Amino acid sequence: MTFDLATLVQPATSKILLVVLDGLAGYATADRGTELEEADTPNLDALAAAGTTGMLDPVGPGITPGSGPAHLSLFGYDPFDYHLGRGALSAAGLDVHLNPGDVAARGNLATVDERGIIIDRRAGRLPDLEAVEVIRRLNEGVSIDGVEVLFVHEAQHRVLVVLRGADLDPHVDDTDPQKNGCPPLAPMAQTRAATHTAGVVAEIDRQARHVLAEQPKANAILLRGLDSHRQLPTVQERYGLRAAADAIYPMYRGIGRLVGMDVIGPPVTIDEQVLLLKEHWDGYDFFFFHHKAADSAGEDGNYDAKVAAIESLDAVIPQLMDMTPDVIAVTGDHATPSQMAAHSWHSVPVLVHGELVGRDHVERFGERYCIQGALGRRPARELMPIMLNVAGRLAKYGA
Amino acid sequence: MTFDLATLVQPATSKILLVVLDGLAGYATADRGTELEEADTPNLDALAAAGTTGMLDPVGPGITPGSGPAHLSLFGYDPFDYHLGRGALSAAGLDVHLNPGDVAARGNLATVDERGIIIDRRAGRLPDLEAVEVIRRLNEGVSIDGVEVLFVHEAQHRVLVVLRGADLDPHVDDTDPQKNGCPPLAPMAQTRAATHTAGVVAEIDRQARHVLAEQPKANAILLRGLDSHRQLPTVQERYGLRAAADAIYPMYRGIGRLVGMDVIGPPVTIDEQVLLLKEHWDGYDFFFFHHKAADSAGEDGNYDAKVAAIESLDAVIPQLMDMTPDVIAVTGDHATPSQMAAHSWHSVPVLVHGELVGRDHVERFGERYCIQGALGRRPARELMPIMLNVAGRLAKYGA
Repeated sequence: MTFDLATLVQPATSKILLVVLDGLAGYATADRGTELEEADTPNLDALAAAGTTGMLDPVGPGITPGSGPAHLSLFGYDPFDYHLGRGALSAAGLDVHLNPGDVAARGNLATVDERGIIIDRRAGRLPDLEAVEVIRRLNEGVSIDGVEVLFVHEAQHRVLVVLRGADLDPHVDDTDPQKNGCPPLAPMAQTRAATHTAGVVAEIDRQARHVLAEQPKANAILLRGLDSHRQLPTVQERYGLRAAADAIYPMYRGIGRLVGMDVIGPPVTIDEQVLLLKEHWDGYDFFFFHHKAADSAGEDGNYDAKVAAIESLDAVIPQLMDMTPDVIAVTGDHATPSQMAAHSWHSVPVLVHGELVGRDHVERFGERYCIQGALGRRPARELMPIMLNVAGRLAKYGA
Repeated sequence: MTFDLATLVQPATSKILLVVLDGLAGYATADRGTELEEADTPNLDALAAAGTTGMLDPVGPGITPGSGPAHLSLFGYDPFDYHLGRGALSAAGLDVHLNPGDVAARGNLATVDERGIIIDRRAGRLPDLEAVEVIRRLNEGVSIDGVEVLFVHEAQHRVLVVLRGADLDPHVDDTDPQKNGCPPLAPMAQTRAATHTAGVVAEIDRQARHVLAEQPKANAILLRGLDSHRQLPTVQERYGLRAAADAIYPMYRGIGRLVGMDVIGPPVTIDEQVLLLKEHWDGYDFFFFHHKAADSAGEDGNYDAKVAAIESLDAVIPQLMDMTPDVIAVTGDHATPSQMAAHSWHSVPVLVHGELVGRDHVERFGERYCIQGALGRRPARELMPIMLNVAGRLAKYGA
């Protein structure tokens, strides 16, 4: 549809709380239900019973989403229209704020031999403490006229590289060949405008090998996914919402920031997340409350830990409800079945609770209950208009 | 989809009956079900049991529809592609047929003070009898060279204004500022082509104040939503249907007329509606039978009256079935939950009954039964192709 929802947005004093259990969904097998179905979740079940439920498809049918597009969908942005490159997501994940004109890339510390052939493109998954020292040397030693080059450690061999200066353009091919046994690729400009940037990347490659020549493992850096600052339309522009992101992991605060949310905290524990929410309750219309633990346990293939992670979120629901949100929605950004130890394409259960929502026949929060719910199965990006409407924030369409 | 359904349309002698209970859907709360679920509807339940059911989304996810787009969806028209402005809908609602080139606007009789400041933009919600007299004076007193100006009373202070003449263009801003305490706005042309029409509107404003100078309350008229005749493709062109609209309320007859339906009647009671249907049964392929009462009761916030309105429609189902339609579909155009006393975004139950439809497991007509139905939850505009197909009116697609 070419329709612009912003034309219907009207002011209201209501509060919307979106709780995202990262990687919430799973799948049942012959011997047991999904992690959510088996978890003891009396508070989520009560909300599901008193509200209305359904299933969300994060990005598209049969598509396994990354965290970026999965969250954009939950915020009502079609992830095929709004693309976040690896560089921009890496920056968001590190709370590094890109300015217009900046170019960011994901870097791998790597090992090359004396002929310049890559023998380990992860430099033996360099321990963090060693990596920090290598990155300090890069920041001190790499210097390019007119371009500020910043190396920021992510974890192990993974580095964010930010270029800041005039006339930069991200349309440059990767230098990372994504395999061992060959030399790093020469950085090729995809467009005439990117010629200068390709030269900068080549110079970074050259200087980095010089600076790191004596390093036993990390003696080169490979770049991929060059990307620029992305100005997404904000939730304020699209929905008239003053929104706050309340997340322990930096990447999720970063994604919230990319759509114009204020970051509160940062919190370190779920109890701090709840306190932050209470503290900022009067200042915002919309709260994005992110819970990471279910995804981490799923990625580890740990069924029991994922059950426990879901139960730990259930335990704070009464405190969230004490703040009396006009609308609360609880869902996941995607599935992370512990059987797969990875993200998957499966649909994700959702519950929406509020005075103007109504209730369906579903009495428990779980995949095979919610598929019977009144919201049906639908794209995740449809959740936002529904939350806005039941919060009284959308005018009637047409006479 | 870019596919054109018309390419599949084939002739048939079958009859399709679409029964629309306006504002049918509602939502359940802890203490009771929806109005439809609680209503005693043995005839609708029997159709649901013998047919197939589902839920329809009138316009879009989380969007509360007005009556115009909601009905267009039921007739198979994407309401984001086919927009009806307030002027055109007001005209349809009054059985005033706009010609190509006409411009229509919604007018408010208003009170201005001696300085020309609006002190009541509804003229004290002028009683109908007083309004009719004011409008008679306007029709007699306002006279513009080359343009026929027609004032038609709607109700209280509400007036339809139709301009008919050469070179008219609806792209003129409202004169109604939508608030008191300021003068009426000067009519501004949005395009060069609308300059003449803006001048006509200014002259209407001037003459109306002169004609109504002695009126105690209604001494000015404010215009908004200038709109032109809209030539929608007809149901004959799109579906090969000779169609009839059978509705007590003029607005719904008008919407039917806008998509090329003949208006039969008009009826005043539901019994007259049934008689009209019988009388015209042989002359048409498709019948739009509109029942307003459920919406009116919902808008009044009267749960019991809405239940009764639904039951009054249920009572005539046997007479409708006596006419042996090949396909009967019963649904609503949108939800009007009596808890909200307003239209809402909620999905609407639908049943489709006919020899070639089949049956699902749903035994009763109600929101929380139909969500389990074989049609699933889908956009309302998908109902029309389904009705056409089970009426034998769509050829196979592809070899």
